[in-house]
Amino acid sequence: MRLLDQTRLPQAQVWLTCRQVEDVAEAIRQMRVRGAPAIAVAAAFGVALAARQAAAKGATVAAVRAAAAAASQELAQTRPTAVQLFAVLAALRQVWEDPGVDSGQALAEHITRAAERLAKTDSQVNRKIGDWGAQLFDRPVRILTHCNTGALATVEYGTALGVIRSLHREGKLAGVWVDETRPFLQGARLTAFELLQENIPFHLITDSTAAVLMRAGQVDAVVVGADRIAVNGDTANKIGTYGLAVLCRYHGIPFYVAAPMATIDPSAANGQAIPIEERAAHEVTEVLGQPIAPAGTPVWHPAFDVTPADLITALITEHGVLARPNERRIRDWLALQDAAAAGAGEGDV
Amino acid sequence: MRLLDQTRLPQAQVWLTCRQVEDVAEAIRQMRVRGAPAIAVAAAFGVALAARQAAAKGATVAAVRAAAAAASQELAQTRPTAVQLFAVLAALRQVWEDPGVDSGQALAEHITRAAERLAKTDSQVNRKIGDWGAQLFDRPVRILTHCNTGALATVEYGTALGVIRSLHREGKLAGVWVDETRPFLQGARLTAFELLQENIPFHLITDSTAAVLMRAGQVDAVVVGADRIAVNGDTANKIGTYGLAVLCRYHGIPFYVAAPMATIDPSAANGQAIPIEERAAHEVTEVLGQPIAPAGTPVWHPAFDVTPADLITALITEHGVLARPNERRIRDWLALQDAAAAGAGEGDV
Repeated sequence: MRLLDQTRLPQAQVWLTCRQVEDVAEAIRQMRVRGAPAIAVAAAFGVALAARQAAAKGATVAAVRAAAAAASQELAQTRPTAVQLFAVLAALRQVWEDPGVDSGQALAEHITRAAERLAKTDSQVNRKIGDWGAQLFDRPVRILTHCNTGALATVEYGTALGVIRSLHREGKLAGVWVDETRPFLQGARLTAFELLQENIPFHLITDSTAAVLMRAGQVDAVVVGADRIAVNGDTANKIGTYGLAVLCRYHGIPFYVAAPMATIDPSAANGQAIPIEERAAHEVTEVLGQPIAPAGTPVWHPAFDVTPADLITALITEHGVLARPNERRIRDWLALQDAAAAGAGEGDV
Repeated sequence: MRLLDQTRLPQAQVWLTCRQVEDVAEAIRQMRVRGAPAIAVAAAFGVALAARQAAAKGATVAAVRAAAAAASQELAQTRPTAVQLFAVLAALRQVWEDPGVDSGQALAEHITRAAERLAKTDSQVNRKIGDWGAQLFDRPVRILTHCNTGALATVEYGTALGVIRSLHREGKLAGVWVDETRPFLQGARLTAFELLQENIPFHLITDSTAAVLMRAGQVDAVVVGADRIAVNGDTANKIGTYGLAVLCRYHGIPFYVAAPMATIDPSAANGQAIPIEERAAHEVTEVLGQPIAPAGTPVWHPAFDVTPADLITALITEHGVLARPNERRIRDWLALQDAAAAGAGEGDV
């Protein structure tokens, strides 16, 4: 299993070979693969890898099942905030617990096919998100986005960056403001890389430049992704998202969250129920391994923040645009989705 | 003339030797010396250096005067936004144009003494600012500050950091949130360095972490410095300041600007009259000389922004605290200061 090492981009395109599920887990922990959908799909292939390795050694169905469960458990402990990881692991569990499979080899195959379907679904979902998002605008707009939500963060196309791609394709994009997204610099390193490759017009700014751009009337909308959305609409996303939402409110600019329905966590009543990962101080005090602060500097480094639903103009999902999200509207949509899935036939991951 | 190279801190304490006024100008342009008061005082000594060099070669009064004027002209072209630079050069002009001096040597001495007085005054002004600021609080508070406004940005003590020093001395400081201040990292590199040296409790955060700290009730006030204050109270300061002021308004947190009266520019009617320096793209796309964005990334990099007066709770100056600054209040204070200076005797720089 091969992963592009995102900590080395854009300077170097280094592919990691993951031979064990431990390698996949470590790549997620170290943010070599990052972005909620990409993490989830990488984890699915990590479970498949463990199952195939067990099957290749002639393991029984029970042993392959145990290998998949152990792999899932390890992968679930990598990063706590993004919920798609847990949704995907739960979906895979239904596959490996399927009592109708009679050989270890067949079960490993089933799990692999399920991981492939998840990857394909993610790609389709992103294109739908992009196209729904683009329909929000009827003239060329300047979009500010945060972090990286593009092909590198998903299987392909992207969520918030998918909206930007669709706008560009439809001739409705006047330009993109890419904030650098300290400390991990996903904007400067990854979003800038993707937009340059696609010839999409943009400017890079420091995170603290967003406010004055808004004041100058240079931002028509902010579009961001999400790591987990509580059932009331409160949204956890990369640190800095909440501040952008407040700035949008103050300047009368719409603030959109583009994310798959799988980002909604029905078990989280509101933002307070979402665990926020705090990461190591050195990610703030060093850039590319070079210290930028004196030794011994104390740091507070939450990797995510929560934007309350009342600051969100709309959620953009694969099912459409949900304006002014609140618990009633979100539960209605989840019920609709469940009914549609039941109608489409069960067992589909 | 020796200057501590602030681009090398905190990793290395490198002292630059400036042998010519051109060296001083280049050090200001390259931000090896930065901070509005420090730039102004460095420029004053740059003029003195040029005058002394001319005098040492036996120059006439007229030639020393010409050397000072030429040095002043060169130094005035280094950085456009901070106004203290121009105020100090104007004050020195009164000295070098003094018709009562009869030798080049004597004139160079006069200019040098004037530069020394300016440095001493800056230090006294900062202590007064700090002490007035500390009187705003009657219990231990958590202050968030931006950029570096400490001993490195001034002659000593600091402006916003002077308020923090005074609070600490008076036992009214619960802690400081230091934002890193991209792209030049004055917070991470310089403010953290000063606070560690003084054993003042603080945490470093990325710029985009401020909002969520405010939401969590962890910030009692924001105190920043200023590069230029228009006569209506609009304040130019390091990029990112305006966003903090908006976040303060949204969260009901007081926002203070700590700066000497010399920061007020009576010729600037409002913020639109303040020139905002835009700096080179590589300051954003590189950190410590290492690229963090792909080659060819377009950048928008204003070094400062303007915070409108209505977002400023109060100005903290050496004369006291001016709440809810507006043109009438500021003009009253400037008139009071002029009257006091006239009473104290003219000719004092």
